[in-house]
Amino acid sequence: MTDPVVVVGGDAAGLSAASKLTREDPEREVIVFERGAWVSYAHCGIPYYVKGEVDDLTDLLSLRPEDVDDRGIDLRRRHEVTAVDTDAHTVTVEGPDGSFEQSYGNLLVATGASAVSDPIPGSELDGAFTIHGLDSAATVRAAVTPPEEFSLEALGGGSFVDAERARYYGERPAPDRVAIVGGGYVGVEMAEAFAAWDVETHLFQRSQRLLPAFGDAVAETVESHLEEMGVHLHMGTPVDRLTGTDGNVTGLVCTDGTELSIGLAVVGIGVRPNVDLLRDTPVELGDSGAVAVDEYGQTNVDEVYAAGDCAEDRHAVTGEPAWVPLGLTANRAGRAIGQTLAGTPTPVGDIAGTAVVKAFEQECGRTGIIDAEEARDAGFDPVSRTITAGSRSGYYPGNSETTVTLVADRDSGRLLGGSIVGEDRAAIRIDTVATALESGLTVAEVERLDLAYAPPFSPVWDPVLVAAKVLNGALNE
Amino acid sequence: MTDPVVVVGGDAAGLSAASKLTREDPEREVIVFERGAWVSYAHCGIPYYVKGEVDDLTDLLSLRPEDVDDRGIDLRRRHEVTAVDTDAHTVTVEGPDGSFEQSYGNLLVATGASAVSDPIPGSELDGAFTIHGLDSAATVRAAVTPPEEFSLEALGGGSFVDAERARYYGERPAPDRVAIVGGGYVGVEMAEAFAAWDVETHLFQRSQRLLPAFGDAVAETVESHLEEMGVHLHMGTPVDRLTGTDGNVTGLVCTDGTELSIGLAVVGIGVRPNVDLLRDTPVELGDSGAVAVDEYGQTNVDEVYAAGDCAEDRHAVTGEPAWVPLGLTANRAGRAIGQTLAGTPTPVGDIAGTAVVKAFEQECGRTGIIDAEEARDAGFDPVSRTITAGSRSGYYPGNSETTVTLVADRDSGRLLGGSIVGEDRAAIRIDTVATALESGLTVAEVERLDLAYAPPFSPVWDPVLVAAKVLNGALNE
Repeated sequence: MTDPVVVVGGDAAGLSAASKLTREDPEREVIVFERGAWVSYAHCGIPYYVKGEVDDLTDLLSLRPEDVDDRGIDLRRRHEVTAVDTDAHTVTVEGPDGSFEQSYGNLLVATGASAVSDPIPGSELDGAFTIHGLDSAATVRAAVTPPEEFSLEALGGGSFVDAERARYYGERPAPDRVAIVGGGYVGVEMAEAFAAWDVETHLFQRSQRLLPAFGDAVAETVESHLEEMGVHLHMGTPVDRLTGTDGNVTGLVCTDGTELSIGLAVVGIGVRPNVDLLRDTPVELGDSGAVAVDEYGQTNVDEVYAAGDCAEDRHAVTGEPAWVPLGLTANRAGRAIGQTLAGTPTPVGDIAGTAVVKAFEQECGRTGIIDAEEARDAGFDPVSRTITAGSRSGYYPGNSETTVTLVADRDSGRLLGGSIVGEDRAAIRIDTVATALESGLTVAEVERLDLAYAPPFSPVWDPVLVAAKVLNGALNE
Repeated sequence: MTDPVVVVGGDAAGLSAASKLTREDPEREVIVFERGAWVSYAHCGIPYYVKGEVDDLTDLLSLRPEDVDDRGIDLRRRHEVTAVDTDAHTVTVEGPDGSFEQSYGNLLVATGASAVSDPIPGSELDGAFTIHGLDSAATVRAAVTPPEEFSLEALGGGSFVDAERARYYGERPAPDRVAIVGGGYVGVEMAEAFAAWDVETHLFQRSQRLLPAFGDAVAETVESHLEEMGVHLHMGTPVDRLTGTDGNVTGLVCTDGTELSIGLAVVGIGVRPNVDLLRDTPVELGDSGAVAVDEYGQTNVDEVYAAGDCAEDRHAVTGEPAWVPLGLTANRAGRAIGQTLAGTPTPVGDIAGTAVVKAFEQECGRTGIIDAEEARDAGFDPVSRTITAGSRSGYYPGNSETTVTLVADRDSGRLLGGSIVGEDRAAIRIDTVATALESGLTVAEVERLDLAYAPPFSPVWDPVLVAAKVLNGALNE
């Protein structure tokens, strides 16, 4: 009998793989080890839970443990895989009842990524948080809730929540002022969340731009919008350390000497892949530090796969490995690997780095390669144009300015990337750009796409088409 | 010296061509003959003007005559071209000062399309309208406005409006009950417009489905939505005739004998290309009855081009000529022909039949080939699946059911068409399907597209991806 498929990590990639495999090949044994108490949950929903727009913490669960059972998956929560032996085909597991060895026929490493905080001294203080995992979500919401409004029940999440920790924060006075360290997705989304609690919110960004992956045009719009919304931006201002009194965060010091007294800090300066488990194995990592895989999600070791936030993928534009840890990628790769292990080899799919983020009322999207240097490094000669056009017919109520940037290669005319920002259905339009880019269209071909037009939804020339027209003109100059 | 480029028709296609040519080659003489008083205007905005959501009739003008002057285009309004002599390279023009001959170097026929009403006897009665042209828009709005609220000024449009006709309708009592004959775009949009005036609205559709081009899934949703909104639907009910008293429409009789007394009727049973001008010329029409053109918009007669609602285009899926008179197609083809005439041969672009329509709160989109018979006629073996998925993460406020149909060819897996309906950003998602389809993607490739995910905008698997997953599963059964 074949040894079971062992999955390390019970989140998007791991459970997608286990579900698909179990459905396609019910005879094949699958064991999922998850070190935490939670399983598959919606990471990206955390800021909206802290904001209070999502009511109950359990709303963020994609799958409840009982759903996993229903699917016939052997899920072992609070079981941490601490070592892998690829020669012996075993993993070492620390469970509530001690340590044991588990042999595997195939191994899927789906260990995810973790928030980075250690470059900022003081991150360990009470009142300083990273946004990663549902426990931190519950705690941050408890901390911004005024004590008179706080109750454990209102947080939701039942027995999954660390009640003692939540109560500790819930019963303290709510902070008057919070600092967010980092101006990526998490920073921007958390600014919206804190603003909803009427807390004075300061956002510190090391570089001169928010949301750097989205390019300058998006960043400019988002920066002025956040300021309009009352967020205090500190651009080009690296944070040196958090300071505290009696173990509680009370201040922040920037490298330029600026000091600010604060009652709460969120550090959102990035994530890194959880690959420690593979350190002493022959499984190779890519340049990004995430696990290198082939188009089927297989590592350099035959029986070992990796998927989700701990693994690289192939970039649709460059054809090279890239590490872009996002939700769809994890789900899709997990599902494909499940299908491959069930006997139907299925590519995990390329990534285009498509991402969207809401910044208060501004919807932002990006895909492909926007940064000129990155494009040149990949061997392209990038030409870029940014336009602003209406989201609907000019005379139709709700028409709103939409800014689109498209980037193409000068020689081939091939579309390399794009971004979009605006208040009216802007984000979802990035899917058109992503589809064009993954299809390898040239900008001239994009310009001739037969896209939708009706006054309530789009002007005759959709903003994406306007951008393509202008960029194509520039390519032909 | 070369004879001028003569353009027949001063709407989207004609003026786009004239503008582009004038910009690219300012030396080339261009004369545009327009038989009406208006120039380029937003057809698709008329229902929203009648509804009152768009305030002033002139808001619907894409270009004002003075804008056309500013572009250096010689526009002659109230000049009707009545004959073409392709041997002599001349057109006969009836202008305010009589008839004359104008010679041309190139001719662009951009005569548009006209609403069909003649199969319904009684369409000539007062109070019976087709929605075509800004004059009819002003008149219909005057007719539904209660006399005590009516004023000529409130209609907007100034000297362009037929004041006598508008006043005649504006001073009559507003109808208690209106009938819409035809359940295509115009019918559905006008139902929304009349409902806003609190008029009892009856919609008569010959076939069993509204919006037949959008397929069954969209039609079902829209039908129940319209009924919820208080519109009385009469499906499978051909209208035999309108009846009147003293020249005014007062009733409607269906072929099944049903009678209804009404105060106003709108007939929206389709449009046909305006090609009478070419009847006795060697310029060939296609099977659709519209002008046959090559990929540059050129007819079988070398110097003669055609574009916009009077011309065919090549369908992206079948590669065959098709007639789908829509706004973007006209603008795009006109612009391309302008560029070609300026010396840079530019394809007019294929069409995918992408269309969107708003039905009260429901947003509908369609692209490509949805109808199974049409797909089989084009040599495909169509397989279709319809799914319903959320528009956002399930826990995020505003999440709304979105129904997607995708159609693919069984053998090749190639995407042939799709439709979408839902209340939350549904319509614009059809652009993703249109782009995939024009790029020639298979459903398996669509399933692996890296589309956007963030809770406020899309679930992890966008509804389009869910549909692709299910359809791809069906193809592999």
